[in-house]
Amino acid sequence: MLPGCAVVPSQTMGISDPLPSWNEGEAKARVLSFVSQVTDQSGDAFVPVEARIAVFDHDGTLMIEQPDVVQFEFIYERIRYLAEDHPEWTSTQPYQAILADDKKYLSGLNYGQKGGVIVVAQTGITHEEFTAAVQLFLNTAKDLRFSRRYTQLVYQPMIELIRLLHSESFQVYVVSGGGIDFIRAFSEEIYAIPKDHVVGSSWRTSLEEQDNRWVVMRKPGFNSLNVGKNKPLNIHLHVGRRPILAVGNSDGDIQMLQYTSDQQHSLVLLLQHDDARREYEYLNDSVRSRETGIREGWQVISMEQDFSVIFAEE
Amino acid sequence: MLPGCAVVPSQTMGISDPLPSWNEGEAKARVLSFVSQVTDQSGDAFVPVEARIAVFDHDGTLMIEQPDVVQFEFIYERIRYLAEDHPEWTSTQPYQAILADDKKYLSGLNYGQKGGVIVVAQTGITHEEFTAAVQLFLNTAKDLRFSRRYTQLVYQPMIELIRLLHSESFQVYVVSGGGIDFIRAFSEEIYAIPKDHVVGSSWRTSLEEQDNRWVVMRKPGFNSLNVGKNKPLNIHLHVGRRPILAVGNSDGDIQMLQYTSDQQHSLVLLLQHDDARREYEYLNDSVRSRETGIREGWQVISMEQDFSVIFAEE
Repeated sequence: MLPGCAVVPSQTMGISDPLPSWNEGEAKARVLSFVSQVTDQSGDAFVPVEARIAVFDHDGTLMIEQPDVVQFEFIYERIRYLAEDHPEWTSTQPYQAILADDKKYLSGLNYGQKGGVIVVAQTGITHEEFTAAVQLFLNTAKDLRFSRRYTQLVYQPMIELIRLLHSESFQVYVVSGGGIDFIRAFSEEIYAIPKDHVVGSSWRTSLEEQDNRWVVMRKPGFNSLNVGKNKPLNIHLHVGRRPILAVGNSDGDIQMLQYTSDQQHSLVLLLQHDDARREYEYLNDSVRSRETGIREGWQVISMEQDFSVIFAEE
Repeated sequence: MLPGCAVVPSQTMGISDPLPSWNEGEAKARVLSFVSQVTDQSGDAFVPVEARIAVFDHDGTLMIEQPDVVQFEFIYERIRYLAEDHPEWTSTQPYQAILADDKKYLSGLNYGQKGGVIVVAQTGITHEEFTAAVQLFLNTAKDLRFSRRYTQLVYQPMIELIRLLHSESFQVYVVSGGGIDFIRAFSEEIYAIPKDHVVGSSWRTSLEEQDNRWVVMRKPGFNSLNVGKNKPLNIHLHVGRRPILAVGNSDGDIQMLQYTSDQQHSLVLLLQHDDARREYEYLNDSVRSRETGIREGWQVISMEQDFSVIFAEE
């Protein structure tokens, strides 16, 4: 090669690296090779545009989920806002702990124990009121460790992967155990993923008349809790096709990842939180998905080794 | 104007008419004016691309629904196919009437009386098996009056409207009381509407292992019956935005149409079946929606007067 010449470009990606925040290694190579193969019209693994479906889990896959899932920070903030009308909360758990910002007490609760709080904070209001509350929270609240807004604590390498997939005519969906309307409040701005490409847990709703106009009211009680087996079932309901690329990080993603790897010409990526220095280390939470992934040939991604950058603009 | 010159083009549509199967008149003018206004960046009614959401009812709005909704013809065909394993059906109603093709008896049944048949014909099989059965039916069955396949009995003026909306960066959804998976089996081919842009009634589903692979099994029992108030609620769940254009033809569409007309810069179209000669006349089935439409300023479309062509390639 002549001095000063550009590095020989990969076959389909052009000269510039579409994944600059990924270190060279097996994970990056396998992602690039997969995208190249399924979009190569002359190859055996070609997938037509309409079947290029990619699904991403949200918390811990696209956005930070430690010390707590961001939606819980929102829920606690809403409880503090609503507390004015509920003097009894100062002496009732877990409200008391939320109002006192007792993180230790809260971190000891499981989902069942947080149940009432989740309902009270997020239902009994219209969709418009809920979305406004989410956006107010995201525009003001900050993560303590990183002193950044939560929407700035999304993983830059994943943003680059979404961008690459969009440029190769993939339809990219977020498929989250988190609330569908919570994520829709920022998915377009942060991920360039339109609202109808977000699948998540949902409340029951009712159509009610308010000021001579139909509004969607959020009701107590789950319509669907989008974890485990419900992830593939909701992909079926919302998307209507089996994905060829899936990205997850936890045991709640296993069925979605298997549902994807059951498809020919598919790639499954399992993100491992092993970087206590730049993010968090909590590998103990994903033992089962890691074992499944190794058995089924999924690509494990080490945040420590495979990501040169964790968050944008570091 | 000089002899031989083209007619002066409308402001935004270019020289060729995007709706050639629509007669000139109020309906066509209002559709063209609406599309022109919401896409005119310098105008007061401009709507950004991400909010250009259009929803179409299916049966009777895009596809013929007389003498029976096409999905019922499929259901009857499936019952005849399954009858081999059910000798008792020859003496049990309504199976007996279906096997004998007793249209008079069947037309006298309401949805509740058809309930068991709807379940038996469409559940207890995987999604893949169901889709294959739908496609086999559509490739072989013909409407008796028109001697055409059902997928050729879609309204050409509506196909042109969908095409126009697509060309103006609208997201176009089918929102049907019919089965979501039934319509998805042909929506891409017939309407150029991708599967994830179809919203419809859905069965409960379960994720089951078959040949070492996850499959989606259709279970007895509705997940959602997509009529009336459930249409806006399912638009909210699947789309996440309020539409600015809605097209319907029956009383089951009223709330969806109102939910749309509650939005600024919106247009609601109500198709009226008043053409016994070229299609069917059954205005009595849509009295309430017509009254609502007249009161709320919706645009009524007369098939007889506003459509120069009903079906493609006539």
